[in-house]
Amino acid sequence: MEIYETKKRPENEFFRIFAEITTYMAKELKNLTKRSENYSKWYNELVSKADLAEQAEVRGCMTIKPYGYSIWEKIQRELDAKFKETGVQNAYFPLLIPKNFFGREAEHVEGFAKECAVVTHYRLKVDEETNGIVVDPEARLEEEYVIRPTSETIIWNTYKNWIHSYRDLPVLCNQWCNVMRWEMRTRLFLRTSEFLWQEGHTAHATREEAEERAKLMLKVYADFVENFMAIPVIQGVKSETERFAGALDTYTIEAMMQDGKALQSGTSHFLGQNFGKAFDVQFIDQNNELQYAWATSWGVSTRLMGALIMTHSDDNGLVLPPKLAPIQVVIVPIYKTLEELQAIKEKVAPIISGLKNAGITVKLDDDDKRRPGFKFADYELKGVPVRIVMGARDIENGTVEIMRRDTLEKETLPLDGIVEVVTGLLDDIQKNCYVKAKAYRDAHIYECTDYNEFKTKIADGGFFLCPWDGTAETEAKIKEDTQATIRCIPFNVSQENPGTDMVSGKPAKFKALIARAY
Amino acid sequence: MEIYETKKRPENEFFRIFAEITTYMAKELKNLTKRSENYSKWYNELVSKADLAEQAEVRGCMTIKPYGYSIWEKIQRELDAKFKETGVQNAYFPLLIPKNFFGREAEHVEGFAKECAVVTHYRLKVDEETNGIVVDPEARLEEEYVIRPTSETIIWNTYKNWIHSYRDLPVLCNQWCNVMRWEMRTRLFLRTSEFLWQEGHTAHATREEAEERAKLMLKVYADFVENFMAIPVIQGVKSETERFAGALDTYTIEAMMQDGKALQSGTSHFLGQNFGKAFDVQFIDQNNELQYAWATSWGVSTRLMGALIMTHSDDNGLVLPPKLAPIQVVIVPIYKTLEELQAIKEKVAPIISGLKNAGITVKLDDDDKRRPGFKFADYELKGVPVRIVMGARDIENGTVEIMRRDTLEKETLPLDGIVEVVTGLLDDIQKNCYVKAKAYRDAHIYECTDYNEFKTKIADGGFFLCPWDGTAETEAKIKEDTQATIRCIPFNVSQENPGTDMVSGKPAKFKALIARAY
Repeated sequence: MEIYETKKRPENEFFRIFAEITTYMAKELKNLTKRSENYSKWYNELVSKADLAEQAEVRGCMTIKPYGYSIWEKIQRELDAKFKETGVQNAYFPLLIPKNFFGREAEHVEGFAKECAVVTHYRLKVDEETNGIVVDPEARLEEEYVIRPTSETIIWNTYKNWIHSYRDLPVLCNQWCNVMRWEMRTRLFLRTSEFLWQEGHTAHATREEAEERAKLMLKVYADFVENFMAIPVIQGVKSETERFAGALDTYTIEAMMQDGKALQSGTSHFLGQNFGKAFDVQFIDQNNELQYAWATSWGVSTRLMGALIMTHSDDNGLVLPPKLAPIQVVIVPIYKTLEELQAIKEKVAPIISGLKNAGITVKLDDDDKRRPGFKFADYELKGVPVRIVMGARDIENGTVEIMRRDTLEKETLPLDGIVEVVTGLLDDIQKNCYVKAKAYRDAHIYECTDYNEFKTKIADGGFFLCPWDGTAETEAKIKEDTQATIRCIPFNVSQENPGTDMVSGKPAKFKALIARAY
Repeated sequence: MEIYETKKRPENEFFRIFAEITTYMAKELKNLTKRSENYSKWYNELVSKADLAEQAEVRGCMTIKPYGYSIWEKIQRELDAKFKETGVQNAYFPLLIPKNFFGREAEHVEGFAKECAVVTHYRLKVDEETNGIVVDPEARLEEEYVIRPTSETIIWNTYKNWIHSYRDLPVLCNQWCNVMRWEMRTRLFLRTSEFLWQEGHTAHATREEAEERAKLMLKVYADFVENFMAIPVIQGVKSETERFAGALDTYTIEAMMQDGKALQSGTSHFLGQNFGKAFDVQFIDQNNELQYAWATSWGVSTRLMGALIMTHSDDNGLVLPPKLAPIQVVIVPIYKTLEELQAIKEKVAPIISGLKNAGITVKLDDDDKRRPGFKFADYELKGVPVRIVMGARDIENGTVEIMRRDTLEKETLPLDGIVEVVTGLLDDIQKNCYVKAKAYRDAHIYECTDYNEFKTKIADGGFFLCPWDGTAETEAKIKEDTQATIRCIPFNVSQENPGTDMVSGKPAKFKALIARAY
């Protein structure tokens, strides 16, 4: 990176130290572990240095910092609009779920009620002996509550009162909320005890309508993740083992990270009448007969932040597809005198208003307290898609320097027509993020029919399309031998004549997508 | 209400019963308790019948239903934009707070740590004897967690790592989230164990800047509540007794409900250095000296929904200021044949697109399963500001019937220019909601200097401006005698020569606003 000098500082001790600190910090910012050295360490450092999130002082929980949260807000806003286009409405159901609700659906309790936060008391008091704060033993709840790990139970308990006739159906509710699962090993965004998500819960009069809804929501997720987050995904259906606890079918979108591992990025479940029966949600159909309601549920979470980071970013930091970038264009002036700064500001003013009129988020960073070198490193780390630099020579020449974050290519261009150039560039970056990620993924999908070959190659990551006999035994053996799991039976892969199972040697039922996963 | 006939139904039993049911339901909908009979019952029924919220099967918690939530979303979106205009960013901090955090700020623990949900365990298991689900006694937490009643403690514990130099300040964070306070007596929206809110937490380098921010956010709240929710408020500062636990000053906006009681609608706290000291948040200032950071916090909650309902609504149901109405205009066709319906649809199509182009949310309700009478009652209950009805005669005459919800006035108008009429009408309804509420409130504010008179009059509700000697003793006596509390020392009331305290007979320090409150 080029070194730019800022205007001369007053020569006192304070500013000398200050300059040293910022130079040091700029170096530190750049000092990101390389992906090739240690992918996992690179991820952790990036999440921290790009100000996305940090470990909270609560076991396994995170603080989502303002910059990270502003990306999540963009995800939320876009998805929320897409849900509403399909007729979904938002609502809010309680955080706490009575313990006994979990016992109602047999598989669900196995999957969710085990590792969870349990509320047993409703009062603290000051201990008279130690003067410390203790739980008041007299304020014990008759029945304990669980902090929702997912809300099927409490929502279907509510639907019981909402649904009486076919005219009350469908019910299409979604909620944006926090959930808790007491995870033992946590990683920021990927697996935390508390996380943010949306959970959609729909009730239908017929099996067909519910199955259609489950598939529709998977499509909404896939479209969003591909077109907005620029992450290519494989759509498919989960094996019985990997299904949501209580579902008849779980549909999934699977993305490939740059280490070749899979990240399940969204799931949509066809729940049959399991919850309808467990919570006695019956309605009178058009033939005047009582029926149990059919259910779906579907969710994406702050995990998508992890997918975003690990799909696009590089050794310089975050790379953000422009549609998700909180700042899409940053303008950094380089100046020695306040007159120069003033001249630059006048030159860039029409660019700023032009970009804003085009709906682009632009920031002019004339912060005097940070040197340009620090700013450059920081905006690279934060993945700002386009950087515009204007210095003294640019004023004379009527030019600016433009850098695109995805390729780090720089170009000096005339001021005239710069708004159109930047608009086009943002489109191009959005497309390029997707194309690059897809090229990487496609180059790491392998057809494989030989188990020994599979066991060797899986060590380097990648997605494997393999014939599978459809049994849980084979699935378990693969997992035990290689830690890889069946991610899904992909929709877009021909399932005719899948061949011979590579583990059991029996006739295969499916061509399955197998990978190690987050 | 006029009775309209829908097209002839097939004469079978099913539709006969169906017609009876909808007629019964329409009557039931209208069968709302009158405010004058039982204000509290009227409120509860309205919240339920207008599909805003309902009691959940979790002690003191509510389910916010889609229609209620869509109003809350409008509140959120507008407030969020206003916060961001002042430089605030959103973030997310953990739901659970380690118990010991509450002990750090002496007053805060008194105010908040007492009645709260306490997480003591992290696992359930199946009991081998009973086969029921029980809390696993081996999964007891070393230190218990409290579900956040408010987040000053965990946020300031985090700020400790964010704030080192004056250059890191100000920090201006807000979060939209759920909180829990184990309330004994709960009422939907007004006081529930779990509720939704936003909590802003800012850190500043100087006392002046923090005080300014606390006042700025009160102004943001007041502007929003008055201009958007059409609720007039009185701004002021709380007495020491009524202050937020841990604050040096609490600013408040107080609204008057139609029963003359006060509803505290938003508060903004100047917290001094209390949390900075409790969590050791120090920074190096511009003179190279260590200082504790200065704090504010400010919040509004789903309580605003209660204020909205109780300020504007009438004996027919909800009245919504158009800016908050999820549906601003509903069009109900009245027809006997499908041809008539088709003709009406053609006539109203340009109205619908015209309204949509003007940014107005419009719904055409051609649902065949509900009769017009039912629809009318339902939309009145739900507070849709403008109703347009078109029947067979209207097609001939080129007219529509327009009803405004706030006054229930009906008018038959020519189709031409109807978009402009409706646009103007919505503006007028928004203004009228405010004017009406303000007129009601102003007519129920009394200057009072005689305690006996006060004790008599307070029984009928209203706000009282009274001279107060500034002591907690007087305040306590008023509360004990009358259940009324000092709502605030209003900003817009002259505090010169406040007179003689009506209780103690001592010289008054302030003119205080006193009322019974929710």
